[in-house]
Amino acid sequence: MNNPILVEITRGNLVESRHRGSVSVVDAEGATVLSIGDVERRVFPRSAVKALQAMPLVESGIADKYGLTDEEIALACASHSGEPEHVAAAGSMLAKAGQDAGCLECGVHWPMGEAANRALAASGGSPSALHNNCSGKHAGFVCLACGQGNDPKGYVLADHPVQRIVRDTLEEITGACHTHEKSGIDGCSIPTYAVKLPSLAFGFARFGTGIGLPGDGRAAAARIRKAVARHPFMVAGTGRFDTKLMELLGERAFVKVGAEGVYCASFPELGYGIALKVDDGNARAAEAMMAGLVLRFLPLSDNERAAVEALAQPVLRNWNGIEVGQIRPTAEIAGAA
Amino acid sequence: MNNPILVEITRGNLVESRHRGSVSVVDAEGATVLSIGDVERRVFPRSAVKALQAMPLVESGIADKYGLTDEEIALACASHSGEPEHVAAAGSMLAKAGQDAGCLECGVHWPMGEAANRALAASGGSPSALHNNCSGKHAGFVCLACGQGNDPKGYVLADHPVQRIVRDTLEEITGACHTHEKSGIDGCSIPTYAVKLPSLAFGFARFGTGIGLPGDGRAAAARIRKAVARHPFMVAGTGRFDTKLMELLGERAFVKVGAEGVYCASFPELGYGIALKVDDGNARAAEAMMAGLVLRFLPLSDNERAAVEALAQPVLRNWNGIEVGQIRPTAEIAGAA
Repeated sequence: MNNPILVEITRGNLVESRHRGSVSVVDAEGATVLSIGDVERRVFPRSAVKALQAMPLVESGIADKYGLTDEEIALACASHSGEPEHVAAAGSMLAKAGQDAGCLECGVHWPMGEAANRALAASGGSPSALHNNCSGKHAGFVCLACGQGNDPKGYVLADHPVQRIVRDTLEEITGACHTHEKSGIDGCSIPTYAVKLPSLAFGFARFGTGIGLPGDGRAAAARIRKAVARHPFMVAGTGRFDTKLMELLGERAFVKVGAEGVYCASFPELGYGIALKVDDGNARAAEAMMAGLVLRFLPLSDNERAAVEALAQPVLRNWNGIEVGQIRPTAEIAGAA
Repeated sequence: MNNPILVEITRGNLVESRHRGSVSVVDAEGATVLSIGDVERRVFPRSAVKALQAMPLVESGIADKYGLTDEEIALACASHSGEPEHVAAAGSMLAKAGQDAGCLECGVHWPMGEAANRALAASGGSPSALHNNCSGKHAGFVCLACGQGNDPKGYVLADHPVQRIVRDTLEEITGACHTHEKSGIDGCSIPTYAVKLPSLAFGFARFGTGIGLPGDGRAAAARIRKAVARHPFMVAGTGRFDTKLMELLGERAFVKVGAEGVYCASFPELGYGIALKVDDGNARAAEAMMAGLVLRFLPLSDNERAAVEALAQPVLRNWNGIEVGQIRPTAEIAGAA
């Protein structure tokens, strides 16, 4: 099956590049709301499921035991830009568990945010694991390990208690089997399990509504959604899509980017969960698709609509600020007029 | 027509992302050697034709009039990383024409090379137009304008004598009409004209062999090819694909990346020109395809083959250096076993 073209990049009067992909929108009972393309092909959700991976930390009571703030809970769900606030919060989370950056196993990279990257270089500094865009998630894993009385060492490995409980949680929420044969190693070294888009969408419908979540899952999901809605900067950073969209819509849309063109979202008022994948892994297309789905499904004020349209169809400008083209989702994303 | 999948990105045992595209290989008589996908769809060649755009500078004798070095001629064909050697050479070219960075109309951006970017920030500096990856091409345009006795001001505009002669040259070499209706504005503000891949491939077959080039075109093309082969660092930069491939193969392969997944090449010993486009604009896929075509067509020693295979099928490692997957061209690129 050839997935359809869902985003076009224009230059002058022509289409310069094309992105294909697939989309699944599912409600909290598992009913299909929208299905585009081959949604049976398994995808690695990568960082798009960080909020689900943070559920055990909150549901277990360990987040409260260590007095984690809303900013820190939001950071546990983040692919952050490595700005000073992100770095400080990751350090603070570790300190609350009696640990420091030395126990992080995510690896080191320069800040993902360009300004933060150059500011760190200008200060004569060099990056630590705290600057890794996943450091908040990893600090959460360390808190989880310590709070359960386990040695955090090796917490990225599939058979460590942390990854076992995280995998069990992903299986419970999405209803999909997470098997070793269909797994890969993520950029930050934890396992990532390939599942089908409708399973991810179903998981985010449940995460967004609490419907069907076992145990204290409903309260934990609400706590995480609220923390992110209050601190959308912590989940991404300056100028980033997730931050801008959630600054605009608050708790009405929980959205989270993953690597290689994956995006997941919850629209709690509709009970919808969304999962999408751009075939080629491109982030500009994934963002335009997600913004297009917000326009399609969520009732918006005129101001909100204008702001989301600017995210769905951004104008492309060159180094002199001259308009050269546009990113635009195709009619399959926009739906019937 | 759905272009075929030409590059796969793997993670674990699965394919995580897929890139579709089209390829044209043509000889200097215009005969088709290889055609994959929809090669009738027009593409913007962007920076992939910089060497052709540099032809008037050399063929007119103006490069010699100003005493441009081989390094500077290579830089005129470059999408460089903004490293100190690139910045210095661009400034030197302008000085030879009695000009300075103030007359560059390409716009300003931070160096494309990560290390150069951070080194500039660490020094407390900020970028000028000389750091723009196109500054060498633009310095060449300024030299061309001045050498012809024209005011360089406005040299990026389609009706300036510089862009008129550049467009005429592109039409002559490729044999394709370059029309305003099928044009766009490039990242550096000059016009870019959408043409079909076989026209680009034909142009690079002629550029690589000199066959059929009018006037002093044959000598100019040879001079440019030699300059780039001697100084492959100047045409890209540290760690870049074009630099590495041409350091390895010298004059046997002239390759040049363009934005949005376009690549052009000449294999002079075979008389072949190559043009390819990744549908989605992705550079990792374009590089893997070009390396795959080198493996397919050029006779290579064992050492050369191993080095090009590493470019065609790079191993993907995460922030901890763990192997997580691979980029690999599909059988359509590799051809029959």
